[in-house]
Amino acid sequence: MHLVMIGGSDAGISAALRAKELRADVDATVIVADAYPNFSICGIPYYVAGEVGPWTSLAHRTAGDLQAAGMRLRLDTRARRVDVRDRKVLVTTADGSEELVSYDRLVLGTGALPLRPAISGLDQLGHAHGVHVVHSMDDTFALMRTLERDKPASALIVGAGYIGLEMAEALTSRGLAVVQMEQRPEVLPTVDAELGSRVHGELASHGVEVLTGTTARRISLAAAGSPGRLSVEATTTAGGTLTRHVDVVLVVVGVRPDTTLAAQAGAALGPGHAIAVDRQMRTGLPGIYAAGDCVVTYHRLLGETYLPLGTTAHKQGRVAGENALGGDRKFAGSLGTQVVKIFDQAVARTGLRDHEAAKAGYDPFTISAQADDHKAYYPGSHRIAMRVTGDRVTGRLLGMQLYGHRQAEVAKRIDIAATAIHHHMTVAGLSELDLSYTPPLGSPWDAVQLAAQAWSMQAALTLAPELGAGVVERGRERLERARNN
Amino acid sequence: MHLVMIGGSDAGISAALRAKELRADVDATVIVADAYPNFSICGIPYYVAGEVGPWTSLAHRTAGDLQAAGMRLRLDTRARRVDVRDRKVLVTTADGSEELVSYDRLVLGTGALPLRPAISGLDQLGHAHGVHVVHSMDDTFALMRTLERDKPASALIVGAGYIGLEMAEALTSRGLAVVQMEQRPEVLPTVDAELGSRVHGELASHGVEVLTGTTARRISLAAAGSPGRLSVEATTTAGGTLTRHVDVVLVVVGVRPDTTLAAQAGAALGPGHAIAVDRQMRTGLPGIYAAGDCVVTYHRLLGETYLPLGTTAHKQGRVAGENALGGDRKFAGSLGTQVVKIFDQAVARTGLRDHEAAKAGYDPFTISAQADDHKAYYPGSHRIAMRVTGDRVTGRLLGMQLYGHRQAEVAKRIDIAATAIHHHMTVAGLSELDLSYTPPLGSPWDAVQLAAQAWSMQAALTLAPELGAGVVERGRERLERARNN
Repeated sequence: MHLVMIGGSDAGISAALRAKELRADVDATVIVADAYPNFSICGIPYYVAGEVGPWTSLAHRTAGDLQAAGMRLRLDTRARRVDVRDRKVLVTTADGSEELVSYDRLVLGTGALPLRPAISGLDQLGHAHGVHVVHSMDDTFALMRTLERDKPASALIVGAGYIGLEMAEALTSRGLAVVQMEQRPEVLPTVDAELGSRVHGELASHGVEVLTGTTARRISLAAAGSPGRLSVEATTTAGGTLTRHVDVVLVVVGVRPDTTLAAQAGAALGPGHAIAVDRQMRTGLPGIYAAGDCVVTYHRLLGETYLPLGTTAHKQGRVAGENALGGDRKFAGSLGTQVVKIFDQAVARTGLRDHEAAKAGYDPFTISAQADDHKAYYPGSHRIAMRVTGDRVTGRLLGMQLYGHRQAEVAKRIDIAATAIHHHMTVAGLSELDLSYTPPLGSPWDAVQLAAQAWSMQAALTLAPELGAGVVERGRERLERARNN
Repeated sequence: MHLVMIGGSDAGISAALRAKELRADVDATVIVADAYPNFSICGIPYYVAGEVGPWTSLAHRTAGDLQAAGMRLRLDTRARRVDVRDRKVLVTTADGSEELVSYDRLVLGTGALPLRPAISGLDQLGHAHGVHVVHSMDDTFALMRTLERDKPASALIVGAGYIGLEMAEALTSRGLAVVQMEQRPEVLPTVDAELGSRVHGELASHGVEVLTGTTARRISLAAAGSPGRLSVEATTTAGGTLTRHVDVVLVVVGVRPDTTLAAQAGAALGPGHAIAVDRQMRTGLPGIYAAGDCVVTYHRLLGETYLPLGTTAHKQGRVAGENALGGDRKFAGSLGTQVVKIFDQAVARTGLRDHEAAKAGYDPFTISAQADDHKAYYPGSHRIAMRVTGDRVTGRLLGMQLYGHRQAEVAKRIDIAATAIHHHMTVAGLSELDLSYTPPLGSPWDAVQLAAQAWSMQAALTLAPELGAGVVERGRERLERARNN
C-alpha cells in the first residue's frame, strides 16, 4: 500500500501521521512544494515580531521527526497533474526534472492561496518595493528581508482579519508605525461589531492608526521627499478619499482554496469553490481523499460551507489518513471555533452569530453580557465581554463570542461553549454544567453561565415584554411552551 | 406565599435570589446564624494572606444588595427547631429572645461543620493558645486576631486538602514558617498521588515543611524556652514519632453535614449522614427543601453521594428556590469538578479517578500524559501534567485530572472535560471537538485532546499487548468490538 499526500502542511502531515500510527508498514510519501513541511503558519506573526526564533522553531515537527515517524518527504517538489486512471502524480522535482509518482491512495492537502484584492498597482509592485503578502514561509522570509534590509519606519496593512491584526501587533512591536485599513465598518468582521470595536480600541491604544470603512484603491511608488516610499490611496464609505505614505504594504485579505490540481483531475467543487468531499473526506474520485483549507467543511450547524482553519485541517487530515487505509471515520464537523490574541486582549468565537443563524433558518436571539474571569476581590481579575446567541424557539445554544484579557481564559471558555454546542445543549443547560471554581481562577457560576442566565431572562422578556425585570416567570413559561411545541 | 431559608450561605441565598427572580411578590426571609450573609468562604485564605481586603470584600453581595433584591435578612438569628406540622421555625434572635417564624415553604441550607479529629489536647486549647479551625467568618476573625496580636513565627496545619493547602500558602506569604501535616501518603488526596506529589514539590519549593503519612496525636503548650508556644506530637506510618514546636496550629481536615435541625424535624439522612433529598431538592417532609453542604449530592456518574462544593450549593439552591414556588426543576448533578491554586500552580479534577470508577462498577483505564498549554515556541508556555480515566469497554470518558501553572488555563480545560463527561462523551470523542487555537493560547490539538489520543492508543495496546507502539490498528479494532458488545 502506497499512500501519497500532496501538501506538507496540517492536512497532509496529519494524514500521514495517522496512517503510520495505524499501520507502521504503510508506505507514506508526502509531496511538499517548498522546503518547509509541517510548519506552524499561524506562528509567522510572532516570528516577524521577534518573539519567536529562530524560524525553524515554527516547525510543529522537524523533517527528521517526520521521517522518524516513517513517512517519506519529497521537498521542493511540485505536484503538476494527477492521472486518476493510472493512479500517478506528475511532479516537478527540486532540480526541475519531471517524475511520475504512483499511489494506491492519494490525499490532497493543497491548502489555500492568498486572495489578491483589485488594487491598482498591486501587480506591478513586489518585495523589492516593500509590497508583500504573508501566507507561506517564503513570503515570510521575503518580508523579513525587507524589514532587516530597509529598516522601514511605517507599514500599512490591507485587511483586519486574524492575520492582519496579528501582523499589526507584530510590526508595532518591531517599532513600525502601523496603519490598518479595513473596508468593512469594523475590524475583525468575524465577530460582532460590539466586540470588533473593542479590538479597534486595543489597536488604537497601542498606536495603530485604524481606518475602517476604507478600501485601498491604488498603491504606487511615492514621490521623492514623501514620508514613505509607497503611497496608498483609498476611498471611504462616507465617499471621501485619503492617502497614506508608508514604507511597507502588507496585503492580507483572506484566502481561497487551491483547487487547480483537484479540478484538473475532475473533482467536483462545492461551497466557496472548494473541493467537494463527504464527511469521510472522499472526493468521489477513485482512491482520492482531500482535507484542509482546499476542501468544503462540514459545519455542525450549517452543513456544508467553506471555513478554512488549521484545527479543522488537522482533524480532516487525520480522518483522511485513516480512511485511506480502509477506515470509515467521519469528520465530526466544525463549529468555526477561533481565537486571536491582539496585544493584551483575546477574542474568541464559536458557532453562529445572529445574522448567520437567521440565514441558516434558526430563530436567533442575541444578548450582550459581562462577567469577571474570577472573583473580583482576588487581585488581577478581568472583565469579559460576551455575546450569546441562542434559538428563541428551541432554547438551543447557537453561538458565543468572548472578548477579554489574554489571561482571562477566554480561549478555553469558548471551548466550553463549543463542547456544549457540539452536544446540542440549550443555553439554559450551560448553567447546569458542573464547572470548576476557586476565587483566583473562577466564580461559583462561571462567566459563560452568567451570560447564559442573562440570555434566558432576556429571551423570556422578549416573549412577554409586558413583564418587568424580576417578574419573568410567565415569560419563562411561554418560552418553555414554545420549546415544547 | 412566605418562603423561609435557613442559612445565609450559597444554598440559602441562591434559593432566595431565584425565588425573587421568578416572582417579585414572594415573601422571602433568610435566617442567618451570624452577621455575614452570602460570604465567599472560599476567599478566606486570600484574606488571611493579605491579598484581599477589607474582609467585607469577601461578600458575594452585601446585605444591602440582598435586601435590594427583595429578600428579608434575619441576621444573628439561630434556627433551633422546625415544627413541620404547623410550618413554623423556632429561632433565637440576636438579643436572645425566642420567636416563631411561619413559612409556607422552607429551604434548609444549614451547611457543614468542620470535622474535629481525635487529637489529644485539642478540646482543651483554643484561640487564646493559638489553636484554630477555619470554617466561618468568626473563625477567620479569631485567627486574624491571633496573627495580629501574637505575631506568630510559625504554624502547623493539620490536613492538606484544599483549605489546608490554601492556608499553607496564605501563612507562608505572611512570613510564617509552615509545617503541613497530612496523615495520608500524599497531600491533596482528592487527586492521584502523581499529581499530589507535584503539589508537594510546589509547597516544599516555597519553604513549607510537608509531613505526609503523619498523624497528629497530641497538642500541648510547649515547655518554656521551646521555639514555639505549642507542641504537636505525631506518629508516622513508618512507625516513628515526631514533634514540632510552632506558635499556631490550624486544624482543617474536612467537614460533615450540619443536619441537627433536619434530623430533629424527622428528615431522612443518606450517604455521608447528609440530608436525603431527591433531585428536586425535596426532603420528603411537607414543604421542606434542602440544598448545599448539608444534603446528599446527586453525582452524574455515581448516583447519590456526599460531595460538598460551593458550586453545587449554588445550583441546588437555585433548584430549591424555584421548586419551592411550585417549579419542577431537577438538579442536573455534580461531577465533583474542582480546582485549587497552590502558589504558582493549579490542580483540577472532574469525574472519577481510577479507584473511584472501579468501585462504581466501571472498567477504568487511566493514563498519564503531558502537553503544553500553548505552542512551546511562543514565550511563556507551560507543561500540563494530565491523568485521563476512561472506561475500557465503552470508551467513555470518566474523569480527568490536570496540574499546571496557574496561567495554563487548567481550570477551564477541566471544564471542557466536565462538559464532555456531562454529555457521556467517549475519550476518543474529545479529539473531535472543535476547540480554539492560536499559538499564544493553545495548540491545534488542545492538551486535553492530545491526552485523549494517548489514552486511546494505550487502551488499545492493553487489549492487544503483543502489538508494539505504532501498530495499534488491531488493538483499536478489538477495542471497538468490545465497545460494540
